[in-house]
Amino acid sequence: MARVTITVCTTCRRGQPDAADSPRPGTRMLQALQAADLPDGVDLRPVACLSACSRGCALALSGGAERWTYIYGDLDPDADVADILQGVTAYSATDDGLVPWRDRPVIFRKQSIARLPPQE
Amino acid sequence: MARVTITVCTTCRRGQPDAADSPRPGTRMLQALQAADLPDGVDLRPVACLSACSRGCALALSGGAERWTYIYGDLDPDADVADILQGVTAYSATDDGLVPWRDRPVIFRKQSIARLPPQE
Repeated sequence: MARVTITVCTTCRRGQPDAADSPRPGTRMLQALQAADLPDGVDLRPVACLSACSRGCALALSGGAERWTYIYGDLDPDADVADILQGVTAYSATDDGLVPWRDRPVIFRKQSIARLPPQE
Repeated sequence: MARVTITVCTTCRRGQPDAADSPRPGTRMLQALQAADLPDGVDLRPVACLSACSRGCALALSGGAERWTYIYGDLDPDADVADILQGVTAYSATDDGLVPWRDRPVIFRKQSIARLPPQE
């Protein structure tokens, strides 16, 4: 099965002003995921901007030519990492990226920004 | 250069109730693009839902492993087709999908829902 990539926007502010002494919320979300125990076959990819600035923190799940891609927003680097990992685990267990609704964490049910069909 | 795909959500309502006697705005946007003179190397792909329902009409531009993917929303099937075509033409002329800001139509500057970096 194709590997899965979590693309994390490191620039997201979550609507907060920059603090001189701490990284942005998007960078903190990346760091929290780097420190987590990712499922096998899942890679992390930082990106400077997903152009979802009003919906940050934001990330995308993708993986191979057969899977749908999902973009999620309004994520909280302090509260949501466990749910993100649950959702990534379910996504990476599929061939097509389509996780049954009841198996998606609430943040993925309610905070989808957009999705893209597989390449053809 | 890789071909470009315009993926159009045909289910978008633009916040309007369904009319019994006419197709949804997303379907009308697809039909308008089907009737238009697309640039060479550009394909149209209808999709039932981009999960950007609160921002419809919505479409995505993608094309090959080297280009960024962009998702746009709040599009008007009656007013925006010429600008969409201008934006698609500029996008398809790039290798990486990154069109200089001044060369993007206003709808693409202001109505980006999200973008995704090229595959690696």
